[in-house]
Amino acid sequence: MSGGPLLPREQRWLTLEPIVDGLVTINGGFWGARQRLNREVTIPYGMKMLEESGTIENFRVSAGASRAAYQMPLFRDSDLYKVLEAIAWERAHGSDPVQEGFFASSVEAVRAAQSADGYINTYVQVVLGGERFGNPAMGHELYCAGHLMQASVADARTGGRGDIAGSLSDVANRFAQLLVEVMSTEQRAYVPGHPEIETALAEMYRAHGDRRLLDLAADLVGRRGKRSLSWHSFGPAYFQDDIPFEDAMTVRGHAVRALYLLAGATDVYSETGRPQLRGPILAQWRDLVSSKAYITGGVGARHKDEAFGDAYELPPDHAYCETCAAVALFMWNWRLLLLTGDGAYADLMERTLYNGFLAGVGLDGTSFFYENPLHVREPTSRQPWYDCACCPPNAMRLLSSLEHYIATQTSDGLQLHQYMSGTVRAARPGGSVLELTVDTGYPFDGTVTVRVTRAPTDVQEIALRLPGWASGASMTVGGRSVPAEAGADGYLRLRRAWSADDEILLSLPLGPRTVEAAPEVDGSRGCVAYERGPLVYCIEGLDLPPGVDLRSVSVRASAPARAVPGFRVAGDTVVALHVDGHVGRPPRPGWPYSDLPTGQGAGEGALPKPFDTELCATPYYAWANRGATTMRVWVPKWP
Amino acid sequence: MSGGPLLPREQRWLTLEPIVDGLVTINGGFWGARQRLNREVTIPYGMKMLEESGTIENFRVSAGASRAAYQMPLFRDSDLYKVLEAIAWERAHGSDPVQEGFFASSVEAVRAAQSADGYINTYVQVVLGGERFGNPAMGHELYCAGHLMQASVADARTGGRGDIAGSLSDVANRFAQLLVEVMSTEQRAYVPGHPEIETALAEMYRAHGDRRLLDLAADLVGRRGKRSLSWHSFGPAYFQDDIPFEDAMTVRGHAVRALYLLAGATDVYSETGRPQLRGPILAQWRDLVSSKAYITGGVGARHKDEAFGDAYELPPDHAYCETCAAVALFMWNWRLLLLTGDGAYADLMERTLYNGFLAGVGLDGTSFFYENPLHVREPTSRQPWYDCACCPPNAMRLLSSLEHYIATQTSDGLQLHQYMSGTVRAARPGGSVLELTVDTGYPFDGTVTVRVTRAPTDVQEIALRLPGWASGASMTVGGRSVPAEAGADGYLRLRRAWSADDEILLSLPLGPRTVEAAPEVDGSRGCVAYERGPLVYCIEGLDLPPGVDLRSVSVRASAPARAVPGFRVAGDTVVALHVDGHVGRPPRPGWPYSDLPTGQGAGEGALPKPFDTELCATPYYAWANRGATTMRVWVPKWP
Repeated sequence: MSGGPLLPREQRWLTLEPIVDGLVTINGGFWGARQRLNREVTIPYGMKMLEESGTIENFRVSAGASRAAYQMPLFRDSDLYKVLEAIAWERAHGSDPVQEGFFASSVEAVRAAQSADGYINTYVQVVLGGERFGNPAMGHELYCAGHLMQASVADARTGGRGDIAGSLSDVANRFAQLLVEVMSTEQRAYVPGHPEIETALAEMYRAHGDRRLLDLAADLVGRRGKRSLSWHSFGPAYFQDDIPFEDAMTVRGHAVRALYLLAGATDVYSETGRPQLRGPILAQWRDLVSSKAYITGGVGARHKDEAFGDAYELPPDHAYCETCAAVALFMWNWRLLLLTGDGAYADLMERTLYNGFLAGVGLDGTSFFYENPLHVREPTSRQPWYDCACCPPNAMRLLSSLEHYIATQTSDGLQLHQYMSGTVRAARPGGSVLELTVDTGYPFDGTVTVRVTRAPTDVQEIALRLPGWASGASMTVGGRSVPAEAGADGYLRLRRAWSADDEILLSLPLGPRTVEAAPEVDGSRGCVAYERGPLVYCIEGLDLPPGVDLRSVSVRASAPARAVPGFRVAGDTVVALHVDGHVGRPPRPGWPYSDLPTGQGAGEGALPKPFDTELCATPYYAWANRGATTMRVWVPKWP
Repeated sequence: MSGGPLLPREQRWLTLEPIVDGLVTINGGFWGARQRLNREVTIPYGMKMLEESGTIENFRVSAGASRAAYQMPLFRDSDLYKVLEAIAWERAHGSDPVQEGFFASSVEAVRAAQSADGYINTYVQVVLGGERFGNPAMGHELYCAGHLMQASVADARTGGRGDIAGSLSDVANRFAQLLVEVMSTEQRAYVPGHPEIETALAEMYRAHGDRRLLDLAADLVGRRGKRSLSWHSFGPAYFQDDIPFEDAMTVRGHAVRALYLLAGATDVYSETGRPQLRGPILAQWRDLVSSKAYITGGVGARHKDEAFGDAYELPPDHAYCETCAAVALFMWNWRLLLLTGDGAYADLMERTLYNGFLAGVGLDGTSFFYENPLHVREPTSRQPWYDCACCPPNAMRLLSSLEHYIATQTSDGLQLHQYMSGTVRAARPGGSVLELTVDTGYPFDGTVTVRVTRAPTDVQEIALRLPGWASGASMTVGGRSVPAEAGADGYLRLRRAWSADDEILLSLPLGPRTVEAAPEVDGSRGCVAYERGPLVYCIEGLDLPPGVDLRSVSVRASAPARAVPGFRVAGDTVVALHVDGHVGRPPRPGWPYSDLPTGQGAGEGALPKPFDTELCATPYYAWANRGATTMRVWVPKWP
């Protein structure tokens, strides 16, 4: 059985359904390579880091099996849970005894640390002497619980040992049952400072059918907004506790918190259709998309509180854009896509996946970025791990479950949202099967070949997303041209009785495209960025001519960029872009503000002369894989 | 006796000397009004807030005289010390029994809390059970000690009770003596995480002549740079502990820490001439001025760690620009001015004083800004106080001691650095006196009248700073024109045997000036700012035509701004600027990045039509005094 995240029990509120009885795989191509790297390198590396960092040892300490010093931060438990979730999803890609061994011993460590009543949080158990729920704002108890539950759902859905005593599902369910009890009695006013459990409870409900879990999720969404949470300079808005969810029409506060809450609220809406939730969910999405997202799909402009800024507060150099926020944005938009069927959500998923998310993982699989700014002035390198290691395991679980996010079904047929080489097989009403294979060099090549390999005899609709950036697309079916005109929802629809070996050929013109920002965005004014297909590009300092400082570089925006295939980045082959560039004078020392007209100092003759040159831009996701470098996405226009 | 901050004992390393035997006063005019407001409103308000916030109670708790809960943050002691310093400086402006009563009772509370061996820090004494020096990075013990010492110096210099038992000088000196002992023995590796004590020790040395205090200051500057300090994500650079001071050629890390350390290092250099210090001091100044200061003289671009960013990382909307950093920058540049005699330092003092600093205090004297960004998109108000209340008391002590920073002397004569109505009287060699009165409507009026009221018979030089922004200045002496040509140091020099009633009339053309930023500054690209005299201007949302959003506003940069006197801002009268503005279409909802050429949606006909209009700019320091508003200093150019 496939069946990854989000198998709604109440399908009636959804426009699209995940593929339940069927199989979606990614084989080869761009994402196949990334899944393999994740499986073979990143997850084993993560297992090692969890041990070295003391994350697993914390559980042993809690169980009384170790006397090691407790390792902070206090939400470290969740790092393990996320890796366990990734390992569970990996079962769909084949058996791995080493990972299964790690899984089993880790689950045993977790189980051994669990209190008799089901409670588990090593920080509370070890450091706080078992004093529970004392720090709603920053304690992360329910956040960690949520990740435990998500790991257990992955385990249950991929052939884990189910609910038998000592299994991960059993551990998670015992904790969930405790929370159902406690959160409705002595802790009925408790607001979890870091949302995550809401979506996790909804997923557990989907996996096991216990309605009380969904009710608790709905309760936790609904009890926010009474301004009970604050922590030092972080007020209630940081925790999305400033106004009730039903009245909140803008995204604000800590970005990961905001997006997990939105995912949870969308889950609750998807299962219950509770009408008060729909307005704020959609309004917050519009607010984010209109004025609080970077071109990379990265979100969270502010470092201090890892938070959304004001509308249009999007400085490239200060961009925080936490990798976890990209994961959360991706997960939330998947829920919105299922709910509405609108390709705009799949568009944003694509943008975030290929850019703001993927930049968080190095091409070697063992180096990471926690923050993903769009302009880096000092040579910067990826990091091997973080004390606050939330991002790398989050990337692992998303990459391991990626195939669950690329296709859906309706009673009418199948929808392809993301173009990745692989197979999509779905049971059709009446017991028949529709199976497609997808073959594509996407994102570097815009040709997507969809071959029907099994088909029922009746009419089926195959819907293909036409990305928002694609104009001039063309399509053939069985070699004959058909109009590539998408509906208002952004999908090309083909309805017919299909036969095995029918072939759909979609050609998406990738660009390159030269892009401007709205004038309200301060830091991108007078600049352009380059895109090709779903990829946002950047210029890295290490690709500049010798001696040239990235600060001196501008581009002739009127000249189109030229695609250059076969460019090597640290062992990967990408399509680079060549653009007409200009290298101006280096920054002048001295006060950087001058009366108009800009004075041209007499001494400037000694400076290097400006010159025109061809510049090379590479995909943003691939930056900082060839050593420390400067980088910018938005480049000033010249003249 | 006057004699405020910085009376060096070793004058030989200085180019200029503070006015020791003499008197400098500010009477009336722009700063006279601000000093009066500070004395009559802000300091009494601060006294009230210190009591209400529990700051003084902490001392009573420490002394065993109260059982109240300890009030954080852990550096709260310093808030009281700074207000005591301000009250001491206020003695030069007249007797105030209420403030003296507060001073006496507060000193008694401090004394009662002091340990038998001289140690005092209420957090350590109350919360940590007396466990001293355990948290060099964030404990702030020596930071608080430094502010205690600075208050005691102010007390000693303004007729306080001197070193008699129980006086503030006695309390401070007992602690200083303990530190001299402890820091050279058991704590010889201790690096104070927040510099401040270095400059305080130097000032105590100047006041009392105890050389061991200066030696400790030098030792504390010299022992930094061994990378022993870090705290969570704040590494050694945050604490200026990444490299030895003598090797540090860039400003970096927490801005207030960096600038107090530089002030202390400059003090040590001023007193010892230790050659290794001069290079890094001057290099760090050039680094700051070339690429790490905002046009307001505000510094510290990053919120997360209240820190300097990379070179040219100066986004207007993310600007942190803590008011305390402006105070520290002002104090450091005064030391550089004395050292070198170079008007560039006085220029930066002026810029910071009138803009980045003064914006931190509301026109009502009871509202404050801790952060001073240059672009605020959401309507924002001043705050009545802060939990972390470092800034308001810092503003009080600077305003109370402001007259000490405006004039200096040499053996040749007097130098006027800042133009404020008042009197400058200095003893001249041989027992005579040179006394000047200054009368000016500065900063709104560029005419400065300097009248000689007492003069010796011999030749004296009067030097007047020609601000860096002033071109086309003119000057008369006794009604006769003299060339207003400044030397390389930025000063106009007049040497003669002066007579009482000689009058110097300096006319500074104030502008307005339209200013551009260097292209390396992302967030100001394609924008201009306006200045007039020493003032930076801004546009406040509340001055826009009804219904106009500040985000839609641009200016025709080629048209000069026009000065409009008599503009009222919350009871104050300022010179506003009128500029040719343009109101464009409001921001369009939807994805804010678009392919070139920018698509003009068919639906736009329904939007309001763009129109030209006159816009009103007001001094930056005066913003947010008429209610919550948006604001920007850098305004996009149109077309």
